[in-house]
Amino acid sequence: MADTLAPIDFYFDFSSPYGYFASTQIEALAHDLKRSVHWHPVLLGPMFKAMGSAPLVQIPLKGEYSRHDMHRTARLHQIPFQLPSPFPVATVAAARIMLHLQQSDPQLAVRYAHRVFQAYYTQGMNISDANCALQLASDLGEDPTPIADAIATDAIKTLLRQSNEAALARGVFGSPFIIFDDEPFWGFDHFDIIRRWAATNTATSASAGGAA
Amino acid sequence: MADTLAPIDFYFDFSSPYGYFASTQIEALAHDLKRSVHWHPVLLGPMFKAMGSAPLVQIPLKGEYSRHDMHRTARLHQIPFQLPSPFPVATVAAARIMLHLQQSDPQLAVRYAHRVFQAYYTQGMNISDANCALQLASDLGEDPTPIADAIATDAIKTLLRQSNEAALARGVFGSPFIIFDDEPFWGFDHFDIIRRWAATNTATSASAGGAA
Repeated sequence: MADTLAPIDFYFDFSSPYGYFASTQIEALAHDLKRSVHWHPVLLGPMFKAMGSAPLVQIPLKGEYSRHDMHRTARLHQIPFQLPSPFPVATVAAARIMLHLQQSDPQLAVRYAHRVFQAYYTQGMNISDANCALQLASDLGEDPTPIADAIATDAIKTLLRQSNEAALARGVFGSPFIIFDDEPFWGFDHFDIIRRWAATNTATSASAGGAA
Repeated sequence: MADTLAPIDFYFDFSSPYGYFASTQIEALAHDLKRSVHWHPVLLGPMFKAMGSAPLVQIPLKGEYSRHDMHRTARLHQIPFQLPSPFPVATVAAARIMLHLQQSDPQLAVRYAHRVFQAYYTQGMNISDANCALQLASDLGEDPTPIADAIATDAIKTLLRQSNEAALARGVFGSPFIIFDDEPFWGFDHFDIIRRWAATNTATSASAGGAA
């Protein structure tokens, strides 16, 4: 039965601290829920545009609070974290690389995602730089040259654009954003809520297939 | 020792569903933390203005999500809830009445707050109407005539404006917003985080007095 259940859809932007926090816990969540995870790198820019919003730290009052909350959240969950500079950054290159790797080796793509988050939030590397983003693939033993070629193709550019549009069409507007059997959850602070929701909605979970 | 500890500062707008949810749980939270609660009715309008933001349900994508999340949150915590119409509404009258009652009888003011939330979110009464807001004080056995006189005075108008400005100056930008020993927490979904924070910051809690 577990094999036929839909994976958890995990949407994140590499430039989102709460997306990073979620990336360190999503596999434990999926294990508890007996699901696999489909990782979706997205770009928050078009989502902010749709909402008439802006990156969190640039918003008066909320920005100062969120900086404080990021560090507090990291301490509470014992996640290594420093707010990088520059922040936030464009994550097109890293997202394209991840989508490219996903096509041939989804597990490698996940290891790449962890490497990108780690590089940005614990080592302060500028992941918006395409050479840096390629180097992080090299760190995993991959030859960067064919990857550099791949992410320059229209095919990958289109794939990322369509992936982002599909996310928006499903109502995804932030990072992290998790869809579990068509049920949407926004925010790292909702992980416990997801567990509670799953525990009280098992009948729905067992029959739902719309999130595939 | 408990007598000298600062109360929990609880900021909310009567037109905020998450503020309502918080109002049903804040006393249990305070009991767990061995604190009292200082209730602060605020107006979100000036805060949205400061952030360049808008009421939650009016924001594309996030609005639709939040409507869904409100109902889900109410079910999860078994809180009676229906989204009223009109929503959101101006809550100046109810906030002024609460501040007026608070001056002579803080416990009565808290009972008034519960009555207002209940009227709006379980009975669909239009609490933005001053006569309705006064009727809710009558429901508690209060004579509405002197209250009507009091909330028409410059003194109460100034008190609410200054109270809102003081909240903004402390970084309050949403509802519910809780300040516990100078530590700010935004959102009903942070109640468990507050408990965890309090449990791991007892040394700070015992010595802090800045939140009084």
